[in-house]
Amino acid sequence: MTKKRPTILVVNDDGITAPGIKVLLEVMQEIGDVVVVAPDSPQSGMGHAITIGKPLRLDKIDLYPGVEMYKCSGTPVDCVKLAVNKIFKGKKPELCVSGINHGLNYSINVLYSGTMSAAVEGAIEGIPSVGFSLDDFAYNADFSHCRPYIKTIAEQVLQNGLPKNSLLNVNFPNIKHDIKGIKICRQANAKWFEEFDERLDPYNREYFWMTGKFDLQDRGEDTDAHAIINGYVSIVPTQFDMTAHHVIPELNSWSFDV
Amino acid sequence: MTKKRPTILVVNDDGITAPGIKVLLEVMQEIGDVVVVAPDSPQSGMGHAITIGKPLRLDKIDLYPGVEMYKCSGTPVDCVKLAVNKIFKGKKPELCVSGINHGLNYSINVLYSGTMSAAVEGAIEGIPSVGFSLDDFAYNADFSHCRPYIKTIAEQVLQNGLPKNSLLNVNFPNIKHDIKGIKICRQANAKWFEEFDERLDPYNREYFWMTGKFDLQDRGEDTDAHAIINGYVSIVPTQFDMTAHHVIPELNSWSFDV
Repeated sequence: MTKKRPTILVVNDDGITAPGIKVLLEVMQEIGDVVVVAPDSPQSGMGHAITIGKPLRLDKIDLYPGVEMYKCSGTPVDCVKLAVNKIFKGKKPELCVSGINHGLNYSINVLYSGTMSAAVEGAIEGIPSVGFSLDDFAYNADFSHCRPYIKTIAEQVLQNGLPKNSLLNVNFPNIKHDIKGIKICRQANAKWFEEFDERLDPYNREYFWMTGKFDLQDRGEDTDAHAIINGYVSIVPTQFDMTAHHVIPELNSWSFDV
Repeated sequence: MTKKRPTILVVNDDGITAPGIKVLLEVMQEIGDVVVVAPDSPQSGMGHAITIGKPLRLDKIDLYPGVEMYKCSGTPVDCVKLAVNKIFKGKKPELCVSGINHGLNYSINVLYSGTMSAAVEGAIEGIPSVGFSLDDFAYNADFSHCRPYIKTIAEQVLQNGLPKNSLLNVNFPNIKHDIKGIKICRQANAKWFEEFDERLDPYNREYFWMTGKFDLQDRGEDTDAHAIINGYVSIVPTQFDMTAHHVIPELNSWSFDV
């Protein structure tokens, strides 16, 4: 049986030269025809930002032999929008994968993450989409243990599809061997506890470096954070309907006095 | 009965000099003690972006007599983080309001909006939070008809509180009179249909302006888009748990082959 190879859009937020996206595109080349569109500079923490009020650049580059690649001056979400409109021109790819992010995007980090926001934008465009992230911020992180998991997850998404308006958030523990398996999870309830490092510039003006500690408040055993801590790959099905449906009845009982 | 006036944090994404935030802080002054922390430049479309890898500035300014105000070099979400940590120093305000945005933030726009992301960040910090937006992009938009609605909504939130991990997304139609009332809604399913205006710079290099049309695919009568189109103020209870809980059982039936 010969089956047409799927077309796969590969994006990220660490920028087009990041090692993580190279691993991701290599795994995708095993199962489909790859087009890479990624930011020309690091865009970590850009969330779902889009570029308004200034122009965007999109340029084809030859970074790895035989790979169709474009660098974009905008955010990760801009990359997906430009890919769909200017490269695929309406003929959408069968899969959109984002990452592999250098650093975890579990729990509340789904909101801050450019990697996950690019995957969310793929899902908004109706493309089955998955974000991948590894628990290692290092530039030279070892992604080798992620490869077989990424391949099987991508193949399952291509085979089964994903329910409308949903996508996957996949995180990998930083364990080279003995990963215990895959766990389907919910997003852990947590927040960042910020610390601002206060300094004076050479002109005696105050400035701040934002740092923080991840504060996991959630003791549930069905969360992505619990899975990662215990050596599993976590998959959280993710949606972009942010309605708190369960709160609607309560609000309907309020008295608004205008 | 003398009751302590609540402390209210006012933020926005259009920048500290925008007329919308002036209206919002004036209404808040009627019910509490106001602290304003807003970006020093427009930050529309910044979503939940945070500033990583470069320092932040936070400076007190005297823009309106008697109002405690700070301008911040970062994103709307940075403003909330700096306010909580450097201004309130852990003693959290009783309310966080964001806006009034010059332009609607209903439906899918909750993801792209800096206004709403600032309110989301307030809710993550455990502060009852509300984002307000008006269907008028103009700098000199008339916000007068929003005032009584903003006041009653803020008072109801202060009186009733909000369920844990939820906030409100309030949008106003651009109608000066005859607003039909308030509707509690769900986020409409929609997307932006992008159009990229393609140009050449003076050096003959291609660049793009991103524009787009809002594509409302949702015919439901319980959505924020339906409410606005029909002359109501829409309130969507919003949450930041993005888990697609209903998809978990299906993913548990998949066969991952590693």
